[in-house]
Amino acid sequence: MFESAELGHKVKKSVYEKEVPALREALLDVQLELAEVGAFQMIILIGGLDGAGRGATVNLINEWMDPRHIQTHGMGEPSDEELDRPMMWRFWRALPPKGKIGVFLGSWYTWPIINRVKGRTKTADLERSLERAKRLEKMLVDEGALIIKFWLHLSKEKQRKRFKELEKNPLTRWRVSKRDWKHFKQYDKFRKVHEVVIRHTSTAESPWLIVEGEDDRYRSLTVGNTILKAIHDRLERVNSPMPKSLAPPLILPIDNLHILKTLDMTQSLDKKDYKAKLEKYQARLNELTRDPKFKYISVIAVFEGNDAAGKGGSIRRITGALDARYYQVIPIAAPTDEEQAHPYLWRFWRHLPRKGRVTIFDRSWYGRVLVERAEGFCAEADWMRAYSEINDFEAQMVRHNLLVVKFWLTITKDEQLRRFKDREKTAFKRYKITEEDWRNREKWELYEQAVCDMVDRTSTQLAPWILVEANNKHFARIKVLKTLCDQIELKLKEVYESGIDYLDKPRK
Amino acid sequence: MFESAELGHKVKKSVYEKEVPALREALLDVQLELAEVGAFQMIILIGGLDGAGRGATVNLINEWMDPRHIQTHGMGEPSDEELDRPMMWRFWRALPPKGKIGVFLGSWYTWPIINRVKGRTKTADLERSLERAKRLEKMLVDEGALIIKFWLHLSKEKQRKRFKELEKNPLTRWRVSKRDWKHFKQYDKFRKVHEVVIRHTSTAESPWLIVEGEDDRYRSLTVGNTILKAIHDRLERVNSPMPKSLAPPLILPIDNLHILKTLDMTQSLDKKDYKAKLEKYQARLNELTRDPKFKYISVIAVFEGNDAAGKGGSIRRITGALDARYYQVIPIAAPTDEEQAHPYLWRFWRHLPRKGRVTIFDRSWYGRVLVERAEGFCAEADWMRAYSEINDFEAQMVRHNLLVVKFWLTITKDEQLRRFKDREKTAFKRYKITEEDWRNREKWELYEQAVCDMVDRTSTQLAPWILVEANNKHFARIKVLKTLCDQIELKLKEVYESGIDYLDKPRK
Repeated sequence: MFESAELGHKVKKSVYEKEVPALREALLDVQLELAEVGAFQMIILIGGLDGAGRGATVNLINEWMDPRHIQTHGMGEPSDEELDRPMMWRFWRALPPKGKIGVFLGSWYTWPIINRVKGRTKTADLERSLERAKRLEKMLVDEGALIIKFWLHLSKEKQRKRFKELEKNPLTRWRVSKRDWKHFKQYDKFRKVHEVVIRHTSTAESPWLIVEGEDDRYRSLTVGNTILKAIHDRLERVNSPMPKSLAPPLILPIDNLHILKTLDMTQSLDKKDYKAKLEKYQARLNELTRDPKFKYISVIAVFEGNDAAGKGGSIRRITGALDARYYQVIPIAAPTDEEQAHPYLWRFWRHLPRKGRVTIFDRSWYGRVLVERAEGFCAEADWMRAYSEINDFEAQMVRHNLLVVKFWLTITKDEQLRRFKDREKTAFKRYKITEEDWRNREKWELYEQAVCDMVDRTSTQLAPWILVEANNKHFARIKVLKTLCDQIELKLKEVYESGIDYLDKPRK
Repeated sequence: MFESAELGHKVKKSVYEKEVPALREALLDVQLELAEVGAFQMIILIGGLDGAGRGATVNLINEWMDPRHIQTHGMGEPSDEELDRPMMWRFWRALPPKGKIGVFLGSWYTWPIINRVKGRTKTADLERSLERAKRLEKMLVDEGALIIKFWLHLSKEKQRKRFKELEKNPLTRWRVSKRDWKHFKQYDKFRKVHEVVIRHTSTAESPWLIVEGEDDRYRSLTVGNTILKAIHDRLERVNSPMPKSLAPPLILPIDNLHILKTLDMTQSLDKKDYKAKLEKYQARLNELTRDPKFKYISVIAVFEGNDAAGKGGSIRRITGALDARYYQVIPIAAPTDEEQAHPYLWRFWRHLPRKGRVTIFDRSWYGRVLVERAEGFCAEADWMRAYSEINDFEAQMVRHNLLVVKFWLTITKDEQLRRFKDREKTAFKRYKITEEDWRNREKWELYEQAVCDMVDRTSTQLAPWILVEANNKHFARIKVLKTLCDQIELKLKEVYESGIDYLDKPRK
């Protein structure tokens, strides 16, 4: 796999000095065009062996191109805020916006590799994290990102030679650490693992580019030309039409029997009964969030539902029982331009809570497969892939001891009409009802299908959908509260039983 | 001071129920207008005594108004990322954008108060942090923010009664913690400190509003009406003209002798000498950043200078000697819309590094008193106050073991012309020269004055300006490198001598 990166590639000084000026000019041209068009972001991963020139390559990119449009990220030890969230959070956090170039020294591959070499994990674990990385990269590419993964390689002999040289010179001695020599002793182990990584993750959309690291001039020209061609080619394809979905169309069952129809919408609670249960479950919810082990988990409650189904009211019944220091309500409105410049999941990643907290999303990432689908805001291919991207997203949260509870509040078409009219009558509710609500209402069946498909495809064991019959507000609020309590109780039980390992760090 | 908040204010149920609907409607109206106009943000601090209804007030605000435009922040224990930065960082981080309302439960007053009551600090320390808070609020107000500071008060007797009541009811018992009773025992101590705080920080632009907390209906109506009037009045004044500066105009010395003229612009270094010194200082810089104690500080290097003065080149000579994992270059271009929706310093606060890191600003917060002043992008009153705001900002960094080094790279008018022409000739430098550069050049004297005023007003003991004679690039780069090394060395010495206390947390 590394054969052609051990041939001792070299470039003559004369050739180098002849080529560089033109290359730099071309690089700057395409980079500035990218910055102006702003159609996609470029992500450059720089992996490989110590001494193969990773740092030098980062500096080279910053020197040859316009550093104002480059963001360099060295991924060292994660902070406690990062440890509090799923592993990928710190990378989402560092993701460059469209028009920019993000250079990553150390990536989502670094720790899986080191953990495997050190024997902390098994091959199965390694492969699982590689699958995760592949899915992340696929999603980024589908979202328009351009990914280049450089792998800087040295033969064992060359690495030893390189270290020796650096150590000879007092000015470069510092570049060789004890750690470097320790890794050198494990060269063969690393090489084996590196092969597995490169084999598993050289995909059609983002293959690894293995570059021999010994000769600075060869390495620099190779990296430079690769980046140039990559941006250039992509810029040419920017205006090509959106991908059509090859998947068969989703249709409602012929007999028109679907899951929403199976709900008993007549269920209700009288006021007295409601008040009693409200007090009971709010007290219970509060108690649960003050459980000593609650500091080790966090809760994501997602609220979706028909317009006027009563999301706000249910949310307030929850927050009313919580300590205001430990919950956040995130209303999802139109994205800011910083959000628009990133993959659609970025704006939700940025709101993931730390441990011991409750975050309530008033509308959520499901907008992609609901309103964006129904209104045609994104191509079919895009909302079709969103189902699995969302399942991935939620799986990462659950794996990290985040409890994800998703509520779909459903009301009948007649009940919605009644509430719309009522809102128009009551002054301080009027702000809740807009032209858009009436327009959406006309597409009732379209949304209904979107909801059924959403439930079918994203109601997972890890994060099931709770369908809430909301024609009666009392009934709905209690069902929401009770479900939330039950789910948290289960999660806490799980935490008590499982000895938590690296997650074992309570809320700050 | 608390007299009128101990009178036992009450509101009848009938009155309450009559007033609330109209109040809620009015609140929603002004809130939505605020969201649409987006002219300013509202910051609501909720301070006061345990049991006086702080949490209830937060929930009330979220219930009566549209929670989609409200961000609630409970400021608990700071995270390690927050501890790594100046104390105010976490508040800057939570600052609402224009059009939104930020509700803070716990604020920049919380810890100063507790520390004083617990005797961890002296009155002088308390007063210093109160001054800091006042300056922050003044700046926010000058930036257009609307600040309301509620202080919810209870008499000692009332607080005791309140706790007892809550404890009687099994559903509310949890609301009273051991901590609450501990604080109750210190009621008089707290009261004394609270008085100091309120006396010192009830300013014209953001006075404290003391509200008796006992009666829910009285408290709710008072808070609601206050918020309503505040937003309403401000909205009416939104389009009033910008404040004129009352300060006397800044003029250059009559004899036209100014500090830039005192520089010896002929200084230079030949190539051989340059190469030797470059190697020497890059090695030294690298060594310094690998000093064990470097993990306890961080470095902010600010680069300003004439167009074509060679900022980029100097920056690359620095980064070339650093570990790419621990430095960031932040080029300051046009602000994003999220940045524009915040006070101008927000976009710089968000980039403050964690410990053990180097952050280089290619242009900086000084744009306010340079380009924004020269081009008239902001009113005189605004750039005039910026000098002290900037000194505040830098003082906070320095107090937190951040080393701030500011370079002004200066070249002569002729040298600039030479470089402009050269840039137009050399293909891969052409991107660096724009129409704007030529336009700025016409305002040479105007910028010159801005620079002199900037240096006079912001070159402080804590963060002095380094004027760099940059007609000769070799000379300039070495002066920059050497100065940076000297400054870091001094800072490390300081760290070694001073026993660092709460900052004593190394880089992650």
